[in-house]
Amino acid sequence: VGYLGPRGTFCELAARKHFPATNISFISFFTIPEIFKAVVSRKIDYGVVPAENSIEGSVNITLDLLYRTEISICGEVEERVKHNLIVKPGTKYSDIKTILSHQQALAQCRNFLEKEFPKARLIEVSSTALAVTRIKRLKNAAAIGTEISAKLYKMKVAARDIGNGSTNFTRFLVLSTKDSKPTGHDKTSLIFASKNIPGALYRSLEPFARMNINLSKIESRPIREKPWEYIFFMDFEGHREDPKCREALEELKKISVFFKILGSYPRSI
Amino acid sequence: VGYLGPRGTFCELAARKHFPATNISFISFFTIPEIFKAVVSRKIDYGVVPAENSIEGSVNITLDLLYRTEISICGEVEERVKHNLIVKPGTKYSDIKTILSHQQALAQCRNFLEKEFPKARLIEVSSTALAVTRIKRLKNAAAIGTEISAKLYKMKVAARDIGNGSTNFTRFLVLSTKDSKPTGHDKTSLIFASKNIPGALYRSLEPFARMNINLSKIESRPIREKPWEYIFFMDFEGHREDPKCREALEELKKISVFFKILGSYPRSI
Repeated sequence: VGYLGPRGTFCELAARKHFPATNISFISFFTIPEIFKAVVSRKIDYGVVPAENSIEGSVNITLDLLYRTEISICGEVEERVKHNLIVKPGTKYSDIKTILSHQQALAQCRNFLEKEFPKARLIEVSSTALAVTRIKRLKNAAAIGTEISAKLYKMKVAARDIGNGSTNFTRFLVLSTKDSKPTGHDKTSLIFASKNIPGALYRSLEPFARMNINLSKIESRPIREKPWEYIFFMDFEGHREDPKCREALEELKKISVFFKILGSYPRSI
Repeated sequence: VGYLGPRGTFCELAARKHFPATNISFISFFTIPEIFKAVVSRKIDYGVVPAENSIEGSVNITLDLLYRTEISICGEVEERVKHNLIVKPGTKYSDIKTILSHQQALAQCRNFLEKEFPKARLIEVSSTALAVTRIKRLKNAAAIGTEISAKLYKMKVAARDIGNGSTNFTRFLVLSTKDSKPTGHDKTSLIFASKNIPGALYRSLEPFARMNINLSKIESRPIREKPWEYIFFMDFEGHREDPKCREALEELKKISVFFKILGSYPRSI
């Protein structure tokens, strides 16, 4: 199972939660595209990648790769995000002048940072775990990261759970070469594009409304090759093999100019 | 007019394009929230902020602040994004080991970077212009940024237009305390939330389909306080004072649990 590293990220926590068996090898990857590649080339059986955060929104590169790659979603995991202020042992709270973290973590701790460290210099790095490794070599610096990464890199937690709200979750997707069998409590993800005419999206949603299928998410995204034309990422409740879902999907496919089922998989909540 | 600085960003180019008059003061701001605050407190008349990129998708913090702030959109500007590899005079192309830029710019030059500098260390900083100022003090480093910033900071362009595709545009919004008068070629932006039941979004779009109003964008975003409940950001063609748009808006308002018009303004294309 591959995850977005380095060790100690929320993505590792999510991967270990979804695959609790003891005989599994977990492999840390540097970037999300590398995880997609490793799944497609079957170097790993599963890849776990961040897809969406309840505060910051979608992870753009994950959506883009889902559109461009022949890959399936076979599961989802949600992880409550707890941010902590982490320092090198010996660093005083009042001495902190520089704070490193992932851009989303810095954004999610904005209230705490503005109140406690209004003058600190904020530096964006590519992951919260990398931020924790970096402060080893820096003076008067702190990182925002997970408790597990503080332990792993022998750093100290200076302030706990410093996020803006208590309702901060990240949704991770489990990727594989095929999706999952029906469990009776499933979700399906797909991508479609409708013609760029009035009422097109409305007509695309009609089969789902008629069959009483609940949409859990819809998001329009610009198409890389055609600025300001959009594709839609949609999640709905149900499995693509359920008769009414299959019928709605068939109807949507007929009226779409692009159509791709990403997979059906057990819902995490 | 405030823009997202430092000097030489695409945001500055967009601001100067939208306000070509010669008697205007342009002020550089460090962050997007500061621009919103300065507009609301009337320290500036207009603020220009990035909202969406044709490759990377929405700028999350801008959407979040539009939801939470009493502010209006009074215009939009599109700017073609041309990325360049920029070095300190004297740095050889073959010596480049570290490349700095904004995360979106690094992502948008992924193909070039993987081909030309597969082993380079990529460092994310908060803007392309900041990346250009940073390489002054670094050895064997390059930045990805605008031509204007290379000139401004006396650096050299080592490779031109290195982006993944030729169709890379960023859409900027012009913010003010009120929106714009009808011109006959307008767009309206709004935020709404429908009940979380099957068919709710479908019914929300019905008035627009019936009145033949073209949606140019729809995007669902998680609500900060309620994980996995969504609000919708929608753009449609027309002015909120046009009779059929006014009627569709009235109907949508009636069936929404949240409803906010962000403004009507002249379409940029």
